[in-house]
Amino acid sequence: MEQREIEARVRDSFAKQSIMTTLGAAVAAVRPGEVEIVLPFSDRILQQHGFIHAGAVATIADSACGYAALTMMPPEAAVLTTEFKINLLSPAKGDRLRAIGRVIRNGKTLVVTLGEVFAETGGASKQVAMITASMMVVATGSGLRD
Amino acid sequence: MEQREIEARVRDSFAKQSIMTTLGAAVAAVRPGEVEIVLPFSDRILQQHGFIHAGAVATIADSACGYAALTMMPPEAAVLTTEFKINLLSPAKGDRLRAIGRVIRNGKTLVVTLGEVFAETGGASKQVAMITASMMVVATGSGLRD
Amino acid sequence: MEQREIEARVRDSFAKQSIMTTLGAAVAAVRPGEVEIVLPFSDRILQQHGFIHAGAVATIADSACGYAALTMMPPEAAVLTTEFKINLLSPAKGDRLRAIGRVIRNGKTLVVTLGEVFAETGGASKQVAMITASMMVVATGSGLRD
Amino acid sequence: MEQREIEARVRDSFAKQSIMTTLGAAVAAVRPGEVEIVLPFSDRILQQHGFIHAGAVATIADSACGYAALTMMPPEAAVLTTEFKINLLSPAKGDRLRAIGRVIRNGKTLVVTLGEVFAETGGASKQVAMITASMMVVATGSGLRD
Repeated sequence: MEQREIEARVRDSFAKQSIMTTLGAAVAAVRPGEVEIVLPFSDRILQQHGFIHAGAVATIADSACGYAALTMMPPEAAVLTTEFKINLLSPAKGDRLRAIGRVIRNGKTLVVTLGEVFAETGGASKQVAMITASMMVVATGSGLRD
Repeated sequence: MEQREIEARVRDSFAKQSIMTTLGAAVAAVRPGEVEIVLPFSDRILQQHGFIHAGAVATIADSACGYAALTMMPPEAAVLTTEFKINLLSPAKGDRLRAIGRVIRNGKTLVVTLGEVFAETGGASKQVAMITASMMVVATGSGLRD
Repeated sequence: MEQREIEARVRDSFAKQSIMTTLGAAVAAVRPGEVEIVLPFSDRILQQHGFIHAGAVATIADSACGYAALTMMPPEAAVLTTEFKINLLSPAKGDRLRAIGRVIRNGKTLVVTLGEVFAETGGASKQVAMITASMMVVATGSGLRD
Repeated sequence: MEQREIEARVRDSFAKQSIMTTLGAAVAAVRPGEVEIVLPFSDRILQQHGFIHAGAVATIADSACGYAALTMMPPEAAVLTTEFKINLLSPAKGDRLRAIGRVIRNGKTLVVTLGEVFAETGGASKQVAMITASMMVVATGSGLRD
């Protein structure tokens, strides 16, 4: 697939993830094997101390990794997360979060990814989370498609 | 702390997690070392195939584990997730999700938890995810409080 | 497969894991979906403080989970670990370690497992680790067989 | 601490890990925040298909991460792994494995690390595993010392 098609595929699929609209997240960049998602701070996605909830951090990190995997998959495949692990490094606060997912191992059945989440405030950026995730390549016969 | 105080503490803190209102989640049960959170299906929390997004599953699983840990902590402490890992076992679909978090090891600095998420449809229940999470006991001096 | 065949399959495969002889581990029990491995304390498997090394704990926990998965697989399949996560709950010391692996989700491609490791001293037993692991079902065509 | 002292500290502690002698592993490099460990292939550390056992891969990856963390810690502290997660990317075979652990977040209580394991064959190198690990900074009062 060409870069233009890859990007359209990711953006079309992302647009169908209603949770992204609910949280306020958007695709910031699509490259082969790498996807960026941004999530502006809002008072609708917080935990009890006023930081962005670890679940929201994980949501964009998981999607950045999943779409990074999708950029490498054949057109007829769909992607499903089978597992991920996230380390929360610092409280998630600032103007916005930026999650960057990258493919580490592009397997036939499983694609393994590594992602980082940064909190951006003014011009400064600080890493607040690290994620590793396994994405399953689901065949068309499953009825799923991305 | 008494059971009544423990439950009030969890429910008060949960009420401050704005993301729970945004997703539609609620506390279903609080016991010493164990907390349940339910999340009704809604078309605002989905991924691209119409299942509940792994990030929403992780959000309630993380909070169930975090609050299970909080039930064991001294009154002046606050709880922060340092890491979690989630295995997605089946697509998350049905009437609602129920996350149950339990304390496995109640350490002075770290509380380790295990959680399960079930999809409930009519009277049937199916496990859709398993989570393990580490919760840090944060002292009052940090300015945080639950 | 019958229980007798399942047990023989696990014990035959385990006997081919040379690392188990090197560490001193042995299969203690095989049941459908559940396998136990024991590792006696020895001064050849320690970390710098005199506890059993986390890597040795992980080795028997991983194998207990892998063989629990294998008990559920078709005769012609082989099992490979794709990922695991382990929480170390307490220093691993005592007379011996006992790892118990159990199948949580028996999928066609991936089998997800949960394991516990206990340190046994005299008649007492204390949980020292918790593991979650994904096992891939590898087809005969791969040239691998268990 | 100076580089010379840091390296001596790591090598002295590593020499006390009897499992490393048992497996045949050695420290290859020590830099501030980064440690390399090599493990030559031998028929004493294998799983049932003739690959190096995932547990041996995890053992050197965990130690590389733990010692990377130790290079950043005050002289009187000791290091304990609280959790790690490893993704196995390809069968571990070749002349030797090389694990490289790096500090991602140097916290006061927890140090979070990321590690990679490569299989080296002749002049070629291939990544076979990725690990993320949390290391606890244990105070002298605990009776432990590295």
